[in-house]
Amino acid sequence: MTTFTSQNLKELIKNQKTGYTLDQIFYNDPKIYEIDLNTFFFNHWIFIGHISRIPNIGDYFLFETGNESIIVIRGKDDEIYAHHNVCRHRGSRVCLEKEGNKKLLVCPYHAWSYNIDGTIKSARLMPDEFKPEEWSLNKCNLKVFEGLIFINFSDQPDDFDEFIEPTRPFIELHDLNNAKIAHRAIYPTFGNWKLTLDNFHECYHCQPSHPEYCSVHDAQYILSFGAGSQSSAVESQEFNERLKKWNEQVKKLGHLTGVYYEEKFSKFSRSAERTPLSDGKLSETKDGKPAAPIMGKFNERDGGYTSVGPSPFNSLLMCNDFATTFTFIPKGPLHTDVELMWLVHKDAIEGKDYNLENMIWMWDKTTIADKKIIEDNQKGVLSKKYQPGPLSDMEKSLESFKNWYLKRLLQEI
Amino acid sequence: MTTFTSQNLKELIKNQKTGYTLDQIFYNDPKIYEIDLNTFFFNHWIFIGHISRIPNIGDYFLFETGNESIIVIRGKDDEIYAHHNVCRHRGSRVCLEKEGNKKLLVCPYHAWSYNIDGTIKSARLMPDEFKPEEWSLNKCNLKVFEGLIFINFSDQPDDFDEFIEPTRPFIELHDLNNAKIAHRAIYPTFGNWKLTLDNFHECYHCQPSHPEYCSVHDAQYILSFGAGSQSSAVESQEFNERLKKWNEQVKKLGHLTGVYYEEKFSKFSRSAERTPLSDGKLSETKDGKPAAPIMGKFNERDGGYTSVGPSPFNSLLMCNDFATTFTFIPKGPLHTDVELMWLVHKDAIEGKDYNLENMIWMWDKTTIADKKIIEDNQKGVLSKKYQPGPLSDMEKSLESFKNWYLKRLLQEI
Amino acid sequence: MTTFTSQNLKELIKNQKTGYTLDQIFYNDPKIYEIDLNTFFFNHWIFIGHISRIPNIGDYFLFETGNESIIVIRGKDDEIYAHHNVCRHRGSRVCLEKEGNKKLLVCPYHAWSYNIDGTIKSARLMPDEFKPEEWSLNKCNLKVFEGLIFINFSDQPDDFDEFIEPTRPFIELHDLNNAKIAHRAIYPTFGNWKLTLDNFHECYHCQPSHPEYCSVHDAQYILSFGAGSQSSAVESQEFNERLKKWNEQVKKLGHLTGVYYEEKFSKFSRSAERTPLSDGKLSETKDGKPAAPIMGKFNERDGGYTSVGPSPFNSLLMCNDFATTFTFIPKGPLHTDVELMWLVHKDAIEGKDYNLENMIWMWDKTTIADKKIIEDNQKGVLSKKYQPGPLSDMEKSLESFKNWYLKRLLQEI
Repeated sequence: MTTFTSQNLKELIKNQKTGYTLDQIFYNDPKIYEIDLNTFFFNHWIFIGHISRIPNIGDYFLFETGNESIIVIRGKDDEIYAHHNVCRHRGSRVCLEKEGNKKLLVCPYHAWSYNIDGTIKSARLMPDEFKPEEWSLNKCNLKVFEGLIFINFSDQPDDFDEFIEPTRPFIELHDLNNAKIAHRAIYPTFGNWKLTLDNFHECYHCQPSHPEYCSVHDAQYILSFGAGSQSSAVESQEFNERLKKWNEQVKKLGHLTGVYYEEKFSKFSRSAERTPLSDGKLSETKDGKPAAPIMGKFNERDGGYTSVGPSPFNSLLMCNDFATTFTFIPKGPLHTDVELMWLVHKDAIEGKDYNLENMIWMWDKTTIADKKIIEDNQKGVLSKKYQPGPLSDMEKSLESFKNWYLKRLLQEI
Repeated sequence: MTTFTSQNLKELIKNQKTGYTLDQIFYNDPKIYEIDLNTFFFNHWIFIGHISRIPNIGDYFLFETGNESIIVIRGKDDEIYAHHNVCRHRGSRVCLEKEGNKKLLVCPYHAWSYNIDGTIKSARLMPDEFKPEEWSLNKCNLKVFEGLIFINFSDQPDDFDEFIEPTRPFIELHDLNNAKIAHRAIYPTFGNWKLTLDNFHECYHCQPSHPEYCSVHDAQYILSFGAGSQSSAVESQEFNERLKKWNEQVKKLGHLTGVYYEEKFSKFSRSAERTPLSDGKLSETKDGKPAAPIMGKFNERDGGYTSVGPSPFNSLLMCNDFATTFTFIPKGPLHTDVELMWLVHKDAIEGKDYNLENMIWMWDKTTIADKKIIEDNQKGVLSKKYQPGPLSDMEKSLESFKNWYLKRLLQEI
Repeated sequence: MTTFTSQNLKELIKNQKTGYTLDQIFYNDPKIYEIDLNTFFFNHWIFIGHISRIPNIGDYFLFETGNESIIVIRGKDDEIYAHHNVCRHRGSRVCLEKEGNKKLLVCPYHAWSYNIDGTIKSARLMPDEFKPEEWSLNKCNLKVFEGLIFINFSDQPDDFDEFIEPTRPFIELHDLNNAKIAHRAIYPTFGNWKLTLDNFHECYHCQPSHPEYCSVHDAQYILSFGAGSQSSAVESQEFNERLKKWNEQVKKLGHLTGVYYEEKFSKFSRSAERTPLSDGKLSETKDGKPAAPIMGKFNERDGGYTSVGPSPFNSLLMCNDFATTFTFIPKGPLHTDVELMWLVHKDAIEGKDYNLENMIWMWDKTTIADKKIIEDNQKGVLSKKYQPGPLSDMEKSLESFKNWYLKRLLQEI
């Protein structure tokens, strides 16, 4: 019901208060949601899958959000292609099944056919002036990096190398290029995308809400580092010393250590870091023991935990033996899909080399709990009586994300 | 899809025709619905429960409409409190279950905790400048009167005593303070709140639609008094004489008699009256015999029927032995919940002292029928061909309600 | 979310490109849908049933779309009446069941009663100034032609005779007045009404999508005549010769032959034609043999196929032995009901004289397939990346329909 001018929206942005959550309108308004989509989700490099999902020529899956559907398919040259799933003739969906294998993309309506690279193979009975080369499927920007399939809906996408540069070594360390999907799950969440991300930007809620997480990660880590190196204003002397000692040990092993965060405003919002798991734990499992064979460029298990946020819409949380990846997909003003993949070494065999239940246990339980708390948060935020509330010392990343969002929004409108 | 200026709406109000129903737009427009909510429902004292629903310290229930949720809870001081169910930190719902018992209101998200009176008990790791006393749960205006729990969403609520004054003796007569809920039921109705209330403002439909009601109440009463003392332009000599005679008898017993209605325009819309049941009936039951022990300030059963409408959103229909209460809760432009409670003396025991089936029979059947006829009315009113229609002599209260609604709306915009 | 001025819409209309499909906004916008309804569907003569559905006095059925409901009922004079299903008193639906038999139309709310002709029979307790003759049910324009029940929602309906004139002989040939409904089915389709009609305006999709249709109709007919005489730019010498020969034979039998289409712009969009079925087939059945006794003014079976489109919202596809009729009913911006009736001679007895399964086989299968392809088309058209696409030589009728739609829309706004 809102009508915005750029001017209104600028005023609104400027009225948001430091140290407090956003006004209700940012969490429920359909118009702001549309602006958000175009400014953020459709304007970012986002990984939406892993190459192991489509190992053979012609294997494809659809990535869908709102009214958009993208065909992600492996070509005869073993390259991955991404096309908008809209026939150039009358606009029909070309692929109807969520996943499958196609050697030729034939529209089910009038049988226009496209090669896997998107070029037209045949279109019957077209007028003489028809030039098939002008009617290829619309391409979606795509980049495969370390086995992760990134897409970008923008007409003028950011340079991928510039985008990935600071998080590159953290991702490369785990050699996801030689990984495979052990499990994949989607958690549809009734919550605006920013409210959903807010939850992932702080670990203030971990103690009341996530017993599994808290049994794996210790209180000092959660307090100071729970949602990343800059997530908390609370310093833990104890954890700092542990980190320092671990860094020294791990450097000796020749493994990467360190932290990355955006020191000044950037069009990107990226972070990365390596930290030790507590109490000699080797993996993010119930008993702290590995769930799978070693994966990545590790000489030996170093008990480390690599957290990477290449953009607000993706996270990678990686142990020595497996990686949990997150994709946050806005589906509507009040709906967000949270998609998780668990990656293991490509040669590992379930039941023999790795225990799936053990591996997915923590993040599956934790994401189910997050879905619930985000949904109850959204319900309250919809109330007339909701007002921005004060943030705790453990919600610094949420404040940073909010500030980055508002600043970038201001630039784009 | 409508866009209103105050001016448009004023024109529209002035174009409504005496003796006819409202224009379609008043019965379906989302924008007028929003204005209605703020002008009427969120600006009135409305009872939404009875103290017997939460007898023990910490007992609570949620009152919910649209995106609003109110926690109604009994405190350690035995007082009833009403709070907006929105955590002051990040806005989460605090109570998730519809009813229960809580000694402390702990937000499930980050564990901020509130005392039953709404004040903060604890909030971890907040910055130094945080003042807990500023972050109590938002209070909702509340008044317990004769066991009935009234709330008012307004920031400047009307004076409760002024509001209740004319209907006070009629309500007090039945001593609901010493009653308990025997049964409670919600009838979700596809109909605008005003269309739903229209149905309760006339008994012109009773003969075709309500055989149960007509078997209890006689034709002469229905004709002239069916929806209240001012509901009909039809005079019944027969009923008037019966009323006169009954008034004399009942005065001798020392019981209240009489009628209240708003003689001139008031910001409130209230009514009350006592009338005799027909044919020596003693209660609103199938056979006219009492369903329960005597309740209220009666020296003996007087065969009377007390109807009270403290506001358009509530009705009380009371015999000597039980009371049926109505709360009309707007849920959306085309949805209204009708909530009924049947109250009996607090010491009466079901099966022994009262027969529940007998007691709820008439209003349960009648409200189910009303739901259906309101829904079929709403469907027709949505048609392009609906036009305001002429009101009968038995629909005077509907006309009064319409005029009150329009006049009050005009004042507020 | 769109706000249109007439000027905007005129611009938009003028920007539509010859030889291409429409812009997305014409296929999804709620505002354009409302304009469409008033300009087209509510402004046309449309058949919505057959007299055999209500053979006895008082038999009625409801025709419903959006919020509109029409009572179509047979009166004591054996005439058919159509009334808006909205009580003139408070607006309730008068008939609640989809079909039935009523000697008197009694509103279930307050028992206002209407005669079958719509005049008031009784209304209790109305004020003295009430004039019953002013409060008849609102009539809907109705015309029974050859057993087909046409209605028109307009306040100033087009002259029926002018409207039906060019298609009259083609319809009369089949004597539907002496037919009965053998089967009726509704295919609810997720698709804008224009996208749904687009599908019926071309047979370019028949080969990939309709094996049943292609087994009955031969490739040369489909190529040049599949969706009507003007549907294709492709000439088939072979079919033209076949048609010429058949026309000569059939003229000798004294049967109608020929083609009608709008040679210049008309406020109507009508077409009709007779063509031979292929390979000596006598009916639109699996084996080409008749499914039912001869029906209509045929001296003998002539193997012909009569296609009539009296308006965009209706089609009649008729063999010598049965007729398949189509009504396209817009239900929302993205929903259209496709209703089919199969008509046979009124004296034919199922199982004895005709085989229902054989008769409905082709159009039932084909309409189920059309529903699916329209729905997948709509999904793609909703994408941000949908752009108008180039039409093939077999989609000339779709281009004509689009041009007619745009021109007529331009006249009305």
